[in-house]
Amino acid sequence: MQIGILGSGMVGRAIAGKLSELGYDVVIGSRDVAALMARTESDGMGNPPFGSWLQNHPAVRVGDFREAAAQGEILFNCTNGRGALDALAQAGEAHLNNKLLIDISNPLDFSQGMPPSLFVSNNDSLGEQIQRAYPKAKVVKTLNTVNAYLMVEPTLLAAGDHTMFVSGDDVEAKAQVVNILREWFGWQDIIDLGDITTARGSEMLLPIWARLWAALGTPMFSLKVVR
Amino acid sequence: MQIGILGSGMVGRAIAGKLSELGYDVVIGSRDVAALMARTESDGMGNPPFGSWLQNHPAVRVGDFREAAAQGEILFNCTNGRGALDALAQAGEAHLNNKLLIDISNPLDFSQGMPPSLFVSNNDSLGEQIQRAYPKAKVVKTLNTVNAYLMVEPTLLAAGDHTMFVSGDDVEAKAQVVNILREWFGWQDIIDLGDITTARGSEMLLPIWARLWAALGTPMFSLKVVR
Repeated sequence: MQIGILGSGMVGRAIAGKLSELGYDVVIGSRDVAALMARTESDGMGNPPFGSWLQNHPAVRVGDFREAAAQGEILFNCTNGRGALDALAQAGEAHLNNKLLIDISNPLDFSQGMPPSLFVSNNDSLGEQIQRAYPKAKVVKTLNTVNAYLMVEPTLLAAGDHTMFVSGDDVEAKAQVVNILREWFGWQDIIDLGDITTARGSEMLLPIWARLWAALGTPMFSLKVVR
Repeated sequence: MQIGILGSGMVGRAIAGKLSELGYDVVIGSRDVAALMARTESDGMGNPPFGSWLQNHPAVRVGDFREAAAQGEILFNCTNGRGALDALAQAGEAHLNNKLLIDISNPLDFSQGMPPSLFVSNNDSLGEQIQRAYPKAKVVKTLNTVNAYLMVEPTLLAAGDHTMFVSGDDVEAKAQVVNILREWFGWQDIIDLGDITTARGSEMLLPIWARLWAALGTPMFSLKVVR
Protein backbone atom coordinates (compact mmCIF):
# COMPACT_ATOMS: atom_id res chain seq x y z
CA MET A 1 0.00 0.00 0.00
CA GLN A 2 1.19 3.53 -0.78
CA ILE A 3 1.24 6.07 2.02
CA GLY A 4 1.47 9.83 1.46
CA ILE A 5 2.88 11.93 4.26
CA LEU A 6 2.55 15.70 4.23
CA GLY A 7 5.37 17.28 6.21
CA SER A 8 9.04 16.43 6.65
CA GLY A 9 9.53 17.45 10.30
CA MET A 10 9.85 15.21 13.33
CA VAL A 11 6.31 13.87 13.04
CA GLY A 12 6.47 13.16 9.32
CA ARG A 13 9.81 11.41 9.75
CA ALA A 14 8.57 9.28 12.64
CA ILE A 15 5.49 8.11 10.73
CA ALA A 16 7.42 7.62 7.50
CA GLY A 17 10.24 5.72 9.19
CA LYS A 18 7.86 3.37 10.96
CA LEU A 19 5.69 2.66 7.93
CA SER A 20 8.70 2.17 5.69
CA GLU A 21 10.11 -0.28 8.25
CA LEU A 22 6.76 -2.12 8.09
CA GLY A 23 7.21 -2.46 4.34
CA TYR A 24 4.83 0.19 3.06
CA ASP A 25 5.72 2.39 0.10
CA VAL A 26 6.05 5.84 1.61
CA VAL A 27 6.22 9.23 -0.09
CA ILE A 28 7.02 12.26 2.04
CA GLY A 29 5.68 15.52 0.66
CA SER A 30 7.37 18.85 1.32
CA ARG A 31 6.70 22.45 0.28
CA ASP A 32 10.05 22.90 -1.45
CA VAL A 33 11.95 19.69 -2.07
CA ALA A 34 15.07 21.40 -3.40
CA ALA A 35 15.37 23.62 -0.33
CA LEU A 36 14.64 20.67 1.96
CA MET A 37 17.40 18.56 0.40
CA ALA A 38 19.86 21.45 0.31
CA ARG A 39 19.75 22.00 4.07
CA THR A 40 22.85 20.85 5.89
CA GLU A 41 22.19 22.23 9.37
CA SER A 42 19.97 21.00 12.18
CA ASP A 43 16.81 23.03 12.70
CA GLY A 44 15.91 25.13 15.72
CA MET A 45 14.55 22.08 17.54
CA GLY A 46 17.81 20.17 17.08
CA ASN A 47 16.47 17.89 14.38
CA PRO A 48 19.18 16.82 11.93
CA PRO A 49 18.83 17.95 8.32
CA PHE A 50 16.34 15.92 6.30
CA GLY A 51 19.02 14.64 3.93
CA SER A 52 20.87 12.80 6.67
CA TRP A 53 17.60 11.29 7.94
CA LEU A 54 16.82 10.15 4.41
CA GLN A 55 20.18 8.39 4.06
CA ASN A 56 19.05 6.11 6.90
CA HIS A 57 15.68 5.50 5.26
CA PRO A 58 16.59 4.90 1.61
CA ALA A 59 13.24 3.30 0.74
CA VAL A 60 11.33 6.50 1.52
CA ARG A 61 10.63 8.68 -1.49
CA VAL A 62 10.33 12.46 -1.45
CA GLY A 63 8.17 14.79 -3.51
CA ASP A 64 6.09 17.92 -3.25
CA PHE A 65 2.76 17.95 -1.42
CA ARG A 66 0.90 17.19 -4.65
CA GLU A 67 3.02 14.16 -5.48
CA ALA A 68 2.76 12.74 -1.97
CA ALA A 69 -1.01 13.20 -1.90
CA ALA A 70 -1.49 11.87 -5.42
CA GLN A 71 0.48 8.70 -4.75
CA GLY A 72 -0.78 8.00 -1.24
CA GLU A 73 -3.82 5.80 -0.78
CA ILE A 74 -3.79 6.79 2.88
CA LEU A 75 -2.59 10.28 3.83
CA PHE A 76 -1.07 11.60 7.04
CA ASN A 77 -1.09 15.35 7.66
CA CYS A 78 2.11 15.94 9.63
CA THR A 79 2.59 19.61 8.82
CA ASN A 80 2.73 22.24 11.52
CA GLY A 81 -0.71 23.63 12.26
CA ARG A 82 -0.13 27.07 10.70
CA GLY A 83 0.86 25.41 7.42
CA ALA A 84 -1.77 22.69 7.30
CA LEU A 85 -4.45 24.28 5.13
CA ASP A 86 -1.89 25.71 2.72
CA ALA A 87 -0.15 22.34 2.39
CA LEU A 88 -3.48 20.65 1.68
CA ALA A 89 -4.31 23.31 -0.91
CA GLN A 90 -1.00 22.55 -2.62
CA ALA A 91 -1.79 18.84 -2.43
CA GLY A 92 -4.99 19.54 -4.33
CA GLU A 93 -8.55 18.59 -3.51
CA ALA A 94 -8.65 15.95 -6.24
CA HIS A 95 -5.88 14.05 -4.47
CA LEU A 96 -7.62 14.23 -1.08
CA ASN A 97 -11.17 13.31 -2.05
CA ASN A 98 -12.42 9.95 -0.81
CA LYS A 99 -9.14 9.23 0.96
CA LEU A 100 -8.46 8.63 4.60
CA LEU A 101 -6.67 11.76 5.85
CA ILE A 102 -5.14 11.20 9.27
CA ASP A 103 -4.65 14.66 10.76
CA ILE A 104 -1.91 14.92 13.39
CA SER A 105 -1.45 18.70 13.24
CA ASN A 106 -2.10 21.05 16.13
CA PRO A 107 -3.16 24.72 15.86
CA LEU A 108 -0.15 25.96 17.80
CA ASP A 109 0.55 29.69 17.80
CA PHE A 110 4.12 30.49 18.79
CA SER A 111 3.81 34.19 17.91
CA GLN A 112 3.29 35.20 21.56
CA GLY A 113 6.26 33.16 22.78
CA MET A 114 6.37 29.98 24.84
CA PRO A 115 4.34 28.09 25.78
CA PRO A 116 2.30 28.36 22.58
CA SER A 117 -1.38 29.24 22.56
CA LEU A 118 -3.89 27.89 20.01
CA PHE A 119 -4.90 29.88 16.94
CA VAL A 120 -8.24 28.08 16.82
CA SER A 121 -9.99 26.51 19.80
CA ASN A 122 -13.13 26.28 21.87
CA ASN A 123 -15.86 26.68 19.22
CA ASP A 124 -13.83 25.28 16.33
CA SER A 125 -10.72 23.18 15.70
CA LEU A 126 -8.11 22.66 13.04
CA GLY A 127 -9.51 19.19 12.40
CA GLU A 128 -12.90 20.72 11.62
CA GLN A 129 -11.36 23.43 9.44
CA ILE A 130 -9.66 20.74 7.36
CA GLN A 131 -12.83 18.65 7.14
CA ARG A 132 -14.87 21.71 6.08
CA ALA A 133 -12.28 22.69 3.47
CA TYR A 134 -12.26 19.15 2.02
CA PRO A 135 -15.71 17.69 2.68
CA LYS A 136 -14.99 14.58 0.61
CA ALA A 137 -11.81 13.70 2.48
CA LYS A 138 -12.25 11.32 5.41
CA VAL A 139 -10.54 13.32 8.14
CA VAL A 140 -9.66 11.52 11.36
CA LYS A 141 -7.86 13.45 14.07
CA THR A 142 -5.46 11.40 16.17
CA LEU A 143 -1.88 11.11 17.49
CA ASN A 144 -1.71 14.88 18.12
CA THR A 145 -1.49 14.45 21.90
CA VAL A 146 1.91 12.73 22.20
CA ASN A 147 5.40 13.39 20.91
CA ALA A 148 6.64 11.86 17.66
CA TYR A 149 8.50 8.95 19.29
CA LEU A 150 5.43 7.82 21.23
CA MET A 151 3.12 8.14 18.24
CA VAL A 152 4.70 5.18 16.49
CA GLU A 153 6.03 3.33 19.55
CA PRO A 154 3.68 3.81 22.51
CA THR A 155 5.31 0.89 24.33
CA LEU A 156 8.30 3.17 25.00
CA LEU A 157 6.20 4.31 27.99
CA ALA A 158 4.58 2.10 30.66
CA ALA A 159 4.44 -0.87 28.28
CA GLY A 160 1.96 1.16 26.22
CA ASP A 161 -0.60 1.56 29.00
CA HIS A 162 -1.79 5.05 28.05
CA THR A 163 -4.56 6.45 25.90
CA MET A 164 -4.95 7.66 22.33
CA PHE A 165 -8.01 9.53 21.06
CA VAL A 166 -9.72 9.49 17.65
CA SER A 167 -12.23 12.01 16.28
CA GLY A 168 -13.95 11.90 12.91
CA ASP A 169 -17.22 11.97 11.04
CA ASP A 170 -16.72 8.84 8.93
CA VAL A 171 -17.32 5.77 11.07
CA GLU A 172 -15.55 3.37 8.70
CA ALA A 173 -12.54 5.65 8.35
CA LYS A 174 -12.32 5.89 12.12
CA ALA A 175 -12.45 2.10 12.46
CA GLN A 176 -9.64 1.89 9.91
CA VAL A 177 -7.59 4.36 11.96
CA VAL A 178 -8.18 2.40 15.15
CA ASN A 179 -6.86 -0.62 13.30
CA ILE A 180 -3.80 1.31 12.08
CA LEU A 181 -3.09 2.58 15.58
CA ARG A 182 -3.29 -0.94 16.98
CA GLU A 183 -1.66 -3.00 14.26
CA TRP A 184 0.97 -0.67 12.87
CA PHE A 185 1.93 1.35 15.93
CA GLY A 186 0.93 -0.79 18.92
CA TRP A 187 -1.64 1.41 20.66
CA GLN A 188 -3.73 -0.64 23.09
CA ASP A 189 -6.11 1.90 24.66
CA ILE A 190 -7.97 3.97 22.07
CA ILE A 191 -11.03 6.11 22.82
CA ASP A 192 -13.39 7.24 20.07
CA LEU A 193 -14.40 10.73 21.21
CA GLY A 194 -17.04 11.12 18.50
CA ASP A 195 -17.37 13.26 15.39
CA ILE A 196 -14.75 15.69 14.11
CA THR A 197 -15.99 18.47 16.43
CA THR A 198 -14.50 16.45 19.30
CA ALA A 199 -11.08 17.35 17.90
CA ARG A 200 -11.62 20.55 19.94
CA GLY A 201 -11.10 18.41 23.00
CA SER A 202 -7.89 16.71 21.91
CA GLU A 203 -6.39 19.88 20.40
CA MET A 204 -7.14 21.77 23.62
CA LEU A 205 -4.96 19.25 25.46
CA LEU A 206 -1.92 20.97 23.97
CA PRO A 207 -1.82 23.87 26.47
CA ILE A 208 -1.48 21.47 29.40
CA TRP A 209 0.80 19.25 27.34
CA ALA A 210 3.21 22.15 26.84
CA ARG A 211 3.15 22.99 30.57
CA LEU A 212 3.63 19.36 31.56
CA TRP A 213 6.69 19.23 29.30
CA ALA A 214 8.09 22.21 31.23
CA ALA A 215 7.10 20.81 34.64
CA LEU A 216 8.36 17.28 33.99
CA GLY A 217 11.43 18.28 31.98
CA THR A 218 10.71 15.73 29.26
CA PRO A 219 8.22 15.31 26.42
CA MET A 220 8.15 11.54 27.01
CA PHE A 221 4.81 11.41 28.79
CA SER A 222 1.25 10.64 27.85
CA LEU A 223 -2.21 10.62 29.37
CA LYS A 224 -4.07 7.54 30.50
CA VAL A 225 -7.82 7.91 30.89
CA VAL A 226 -8.32 5.98 34.12
CA ARG A 227 -11.87 4.59 34.34
CA MET B 1 -9.66 25.23 61.77
CA GLN B 2 -12.51 27.09 60.09
CA ILE B 3 -13.14 26.48 56.42
CA GLY B 4 -15.21 28.76 54.21
CA ILE B 5 -16.81 27.25 51.13
CA LEU B 6 -18.32 29.45 48.45
CA GLY B 7 -21.04 27.57 46.61
CA SER B 8 -23.68 25.08 47.69
CA GLY B 9 -23.81 22.84 44.62
CA MET B 10 -22.34 19.35 44.17
CA VAL B 11 -18.75 20.52 44.55
CA GLY B 12 -19.36 22.67 47.62
CA ARG B 13 -21.29 19.86 49.27
CA ALA B 14 -18.59 17.28 48.52
CA ILE B 15 -15.82 19.45 49.97
CA ALA B 16 -17.96 20.53 52.95
CA GLY B 17 -19.09 17.00 53.73
CA LYS B 18 -15.57 15.63 53.64
CA LEU B 19 -14.04 18.41 55.75
CA SER B 20 -16.86 18.28 58.27
CA GLU B 21 -16.34 14.52 58.54
CA LEU B 22 -12.65 15.23 59.22
CA GLY B 23 -13.70 17.46 62.11
CA TYR B 24 -13.19 20.92 60.61
CA ASP B 25 -15.63 23.72 61.27
CA VAL B 26 -17.22 24.35 57.89
CA VAL B 27 -19.35 27.28 56.71
CA ILE B 28 -21.00 27.02 53.30
CA GLY B 29 -21.71 30.35 51.66
CA SER B 30 -24.59 30.87 49.26
CA ARG B 31 -25.95 33.85 47.33
CA ASP B 32 -29.38 33.72 48.91
CA VAL B 33 -29.63 31.51 51.98
CA ALA B 34 -33.39 31.90 52.36
CA ALA B 35 -34.01 30.78 48.78
CA LEU B 36 -31.51 27.95 49.13
CA MET B 37 -33.20 26.59 52.25
CA ALA B 38 -36.70 27.04 50.83
CA ARG B 39 -36.05 24.78 47.85
CA THR B 40 -37.76 21.39 48.08
CA GLU B 41 -37.09 19.99 44.62
CA SER B 42 -33.99 18.42 43.08
CA ASP B 43 -32.14 20.67 40.64
CA GLY B 44 -31.72 20.07 36.90
CA MET B 45 -28.72 17.82 37.54
CA GLY B 46 -30.68 15.58 39.89
CA ASN B 47 -29.04 16.91 43.05
CA PRO B 48 -31.40 16.75 46.03
CA PRO B 49 -32.41 20.07 47.61
CA PHE B 50 -29.77 21.59 49.88
CA GLY B 51 -31.96 21.28 52.96
CA SER B 52 -32.07 17.50 52.77
CA TRP B 53 -28.29 17.35 52.26
CA LEU B 54 -27.84 19.59 55.30
CA GLN B 55 -29.96 17.29 57.48
CA ASN B 56 -27.31 14.62 56.92
CA HIS B 57 -24.50 17.07 57.73
CA PRO B 58 -25.78 18.85 60.84
CA ALA B 59 -22.35 20.20 61.82
CA VAL B 60 -22.06 22.27 58.62
CA ARG B 61 -23.16 25.87 58.98
CA VAL B 62 -24.69 28.00 56.24
CA GLY B 63 -24.40 31.72 55.57
CA ASP B 64 -24.06 34.19 52.75
CA PHE B 65 -20.82 34.51 50.77
CA ARG B 66 -19.58 37.25 53.10
CA GLU B 67 -20.13 35.20 56.24
CA ALA B 68 -18.46 32.11 54.80
CA ALA B 69 -15.45 34.10 53.61
CA ALA B 70 -15.16 36.08 56.84
CA GLN B 71 -15.21 32.99 59.02
CA GLY B 72 -13.04 30.75 56.86
CA GLU B 73 -9.30 30.70 57.43
CA ILE B 74 -8.99 28.65 54.25
CA LEU B 75 -11.46 29.27 51.41
CA PHE B 76 -12.68 27.01 48.64
CA ASN B 77 -14.29 28.59 45.57
CA CYS B 78 -16.88 26.00 44.50
CA THR B 79 -19.19 28.31 42.60
CA ASN B 80 -19.98 27.75 38.96
CA GLY B 81 -17.54 29.60 36.74
CA ARG B 82 -20.01 32.25 35.53
CA GLY B 83 -20.79 33.20 39.11
CA ALA B 84 -17.28 33.08 40.55
CA LEU B 85 -16.22 36.72 40.33
CA ASP B 86 -19.61 37.95 41.51
CA ALA B 87 -19.58 35.57 44.47
CA LEU B 88 -16.09 36.74 45.42
CA ALA B 89 -17.20 40.37 45.16
CA GLN B 90 -20.04 39.58 47.56
CA ALA B 91 -17.56 37.84 49.85
CA GLY B 92 -15.58 41.07 49.96
CA GLU B 93 -11.91 41.69 49.30
CA ALA B 94 -11.17 42.22 53.00
CA HIS B 95 -12.25 38.65 53.71
CA LEU B 96 -10.12 37.22 50.91
CA ASN B 97 -6.86 39.08 51.46
CA ASN B 98 -3.92 37.01 52.69
CA LYS B 99 -6.00 33.83 52.69
CA LEU B 100 -5.51 30.63 50.77
CA LEU B 101 -8.24 30.58 48.11
CA ILE B 102 -8.52 27.17 46.50
CA ASP B 103 -10.25 27.71 43.17
CA ILE B 104 -12.14 24.73 41.79
CA SER B 105 -14.36 26.64 39.36
CA ASN B 106 -14.29 26.18 35.59
CA PRO B 107 -15.17 28.81 32.99
CA LEU B 108 -17.91 26.70 31.44
CA ASP B 109 -20.26 28.36 28.98
CA PHE B 110 -23.50 26.40 28.52
CA SER B 111 -25.17 29.14 26.47
CA GLN B 112 -24.41 27.36 23.17
CA GLY B 113 -25.73 24.00 24.40
CA MET B 114 -23.86 20.82 25.25
CA PRO B 115 -21.03 20.12 25.50
CA PRO B 116 -20.11 23.47 27.06
CA SER B 117 -17.38 25.70 25.64
CA LEU B 118 -15.16 27.96 27.78
CA PHE B 119 -15.92 31.67 28.26
CA VAL B 120 -12.23 32.37 28.87
CA SER B 121 -9.35 30.27 27.57
CA ASN B 122 -6.12 30.16 25.63
CA ASN B 123 -4.55 33.53 26.59
CA ASP B 124 -6.23 33.86 29.98
CA SER B 125 -8.03 31.71 32.54
CA LEU B 126 -10.60 32.06 35.27
CA GLY B 127 -7.91 31.31 37.83
CA GLU B 128 -5.91 34.29 36.57
CA GLN B 129 -8.97 36.53 36.49
CA ILE B 130 -9.61 35.75 40.16
CA GLN B 131 -5.96 36.29 41.09
CA ARG B 132 -5.90 39.63 39.22
CA ALA B 133 -9.14 40.76 40.88
CA TYR B 134 -7.79 39.88 44.37
CA PRO B 135 -4.01 40.27 44.19
CA LYS B 136 -3.60 39.69 47.93
CA ALA B 137 -5.50 36.41 47.96
CA LYS B 138 -3.36 33.30 47.52
CA VAL B 139 -5.17 31.65 44.63
CA VAL B 140 -4.37 28.02 43.87
CA LYS B 141 -6.23 26.28 41.08
CA THR B 142 -6.84 22.58 41.59
CA LEU B 143 -9.47 19.81 41.68
CA ASN B 144 -11.27 21.30 38.65
CA THR B 145 -10.44 18.31 36.42
CA VAL B 146 -12.45 15.57 38.15
CA ASN B 147 -16.03 15.19 39.32
CA ALA B 148 -17.07 16.06 42.86
CA TYR B 149 -16.92 12.50 44.19
CA LEU B 150 -13.35 11.97 43.01
CA MET B 151 -12.17 15.35 44.33
CA VAL B 152 -12.51 14.22 47.93
CA GLU B 153 -12.11 10.47 47.42
CA PRO B 154 -9.67 9.75 44.57
CA THR B 155 -9.31 6.15 45.74
CA LEU B 156 -12.78 5.48 44.33
CA LEU B 157 -10.88 4.99 41.05
CA ALA B 158 -7.87 2.71 40.42
CA ALA B 159 -6.86 2.87 44.10
CA GLY B 160 -6.15 6.56 43.54
CA ASP B 161 -3.57 6.05 40.80
CA HIS B 162 -4.38 9.14 38.75
CA THR B 163 -3.16 12.71 38.63
CA MET B 164 -4.17 16.05 40.14
CA PHE B 165 -2.73 19.39 39.02
CA VAL B 166 -2.00 22.56 41.00
CA SER B 167 -1.33 26.06 39.64
CA GLY B 168 -0.56 29.17 41.64
CA ASP B 169 1.81 32.07 42.17
CA ASP B 170 2.40 31.64 45.90
CA VAL B 171 4.82 28.79 46.48
CA GLU B 172 3.94 28.31 50.13
CA ALA B 173 0.21 28.36 49.44
CA LYS B 174 0.74 25.74 46.75
CA ALA B 175 2.71 23.53 49.15
CA GLN B 176 -0.15 23.87 51.63
CA VAL B 177 -2.61 22.79 48.93
CA VAL B 178 -0.49 19.78 48.01
CA ASN B 179 -0.59 18.83 51.68
CA ILE B 180 -4.37 19.28 51.82
CA LEU B 181 -4.82 17.16 48.70
CA ARG B 182 -2.68 14.39 50.18
CA GLU B 183 -3.68 14.43 53.82
CA TRP B 184 -7.34 15.40 53.70
CA PHE B 185 -8.45 13.89 50.40
CA GLY B 186 -5.94 11.12 49.64
CA TRP B 187 -4.40 12.32 46.39
CA GLN B 188 -1.13 10.51 45.70
CA ASP B 189 0.04 11.88 42.35
CA ILE B 190 0.09 15.68 42.25
CA ILE B 191 1.86 17.76 39.58
CA ASP B 192 2.74 21.40 40.14
CA LEU B 193 2.19 22.95 36.71
CA GLY B 194 3.68 26.31 37.71
CA ASP B 195 2.27 29.78 38.26
CA ILE B 196 -1.39 30.73 37.99
CA THR B 197 -1.15 31.17 34.19
CA THR B 198 -0.85 27.38 33.98
CA ALA B 199 -4.50 27.21 35.03
CA ARG B 200 -5.10 27.75 31.30
CA GLY B 201 -3.87 24.22 30.84
CA SER B 202 -6.04 22.55 33.45
CA GLU B 203 -9.15 24.58 32.59
CA MET B 204 -8.68 23.70 28.90
CA LEU B 205 -8.97 20.04 29.88
CA LEU B 206 -12.69 20.57 30.34
CA PRO B 207 -13.60 20.30 26.65
CA ILE B 208 -12.13 16.80 26.40
CA TRP B 209 -13.47 15.99 29.87
CA ALA B 210 -17.02 16.74 28.69
CA ARG B 211 -16.56 14.61 25.57
CA LEU B 212 -15.04 11.74 27.53
CA TRP B 213 -18.07 11.81 29.82
CA ALA B 214 -20.25 11.39 26.72
CA ALA B 215 -18.02 8.73 25.16
CA LEU B 216 -17.55 6.69 28.36
CA GLY B 217 -21.08 7.18 29.68
CA THR B 218 -19.85 8.07 33.15
CA PRO B 219 -18.12 11.02 34.85
CA MET B 220 -16.17 8.62 37.07
CA PHE B 221 -12.88 8.89 35.22
CA SER B 222 -9.69 10.83 35.63
CA LEU B 223 -6.38 11.39 33.86
CA LYS B 224 -3.10 9.83 34.84
CA VAL B 225 0.01 11.53 33.50
CA VAL B 226 2.06 8.48 32.55
CA ARG B 227 5.79 9.27 32.62
